Amino acid sequence: MASSTHPNAPCAACKFLRRKCIQGCVFSPYFPPEDPTKFANVHKIFGASNVSKLLNEIAPHQREDAVNSLAYEAEARLKDPVYGCVGAISVLQRQVLRLQKELDATNADLIRFSSDQNTLMMPQSSGNSLQNPHVLPPNYGAYSWNYNP
Amino acid sequence: MASSTHPNAPCAACKFLRRKCIQGCVFSPYFPPEDPTKFANVHKIFGASNVSKLLNEIAPHQREDAVNSLAYEAEARLKDPVYGCVGAISVLQRQVLRLQKELDATNADLIRFSSDQNTLMMPQSSGNSLQNPHVLPPNYGAYSWNYNP
Repeated sequence: MASSTHPNAPCAACKFLRRKCIQGCVFSPYFPPEDPTKFANVHKIFGASNVSKLLNEIAPHQREDAVNSLAYEAEARLKDPVYGCVGAISVLQRQVLRLQKELDATNADLIRFSSDQNTLMMPQSSGNSLQNPHVLPPNYGAYSWNYNP
Repeated sequence: MASSTHPNAPCAACKFLRRKCIQGCVFSPYFPPEDPTKFANVHKIFGASNVSKLLNEIAPHQREDAVNSLAYEAEARLKDPVYGCVGAISVLQRQVLRLQKELDATNADLIRFSSDQNTLMMPQSSGNSLQNPHVLPPNYGAYSWNYNP
């Protein structure tokens, strides 16, 4: 199927694979000829055959998201052949843990300050202590990657 | 190369591919016969040939990490064919942003409480305001995945 921006040009996948880009080509909507690197990366890491199989197994309306996530993974793997985008997961998991720790410490400070203030204001205060609205539920770390590069 | 735990057994990759597991097999150290799923997953998503090429392009001491990150990506893609482990990146990025927002709000509360306390304690205080140690540098979001499934 020819690209809408280049009506006579084969898609980047068919051009790369040197084959005719036929009507209904599974790659054509997601690999325009003006971005040959996107297909080259995905092909190098996953292989055109695996990508084609994967696209045929999912609903058409989800294929663009699938291709974009594959392209993201492929680019990450080419930049970092050892960890790929799992390196990003590891970095983000550490950020989440660090932020949660910082938040816990800041909340503890806040509770201490609130308690101190209540003590100072005791004669005027009705005795209400601060109900801190910033305590998060402990649902971080839902995705666990136990390898720490 | 035979596995150390099963001296006569071919590795999971060679067993899957029905080929002789020779001395120096690139897969053997990382795909033991007792875990056939690990290779099956990696082969289904990346293809044995691509994995073999990748392993041969990186230093031997990094190959185990590479295989484990590939296995992690493959398993994530099989569980979620549309987003794979990029879904985890998206979830973690949102967690980082939410935690940073919560931390900013808690820090603002803490500064306000500190200021209030200083006002209350003015006659006794030397005028030191709280130096909040919990403000983080704005280095979150180093890995950006702009697609939000």
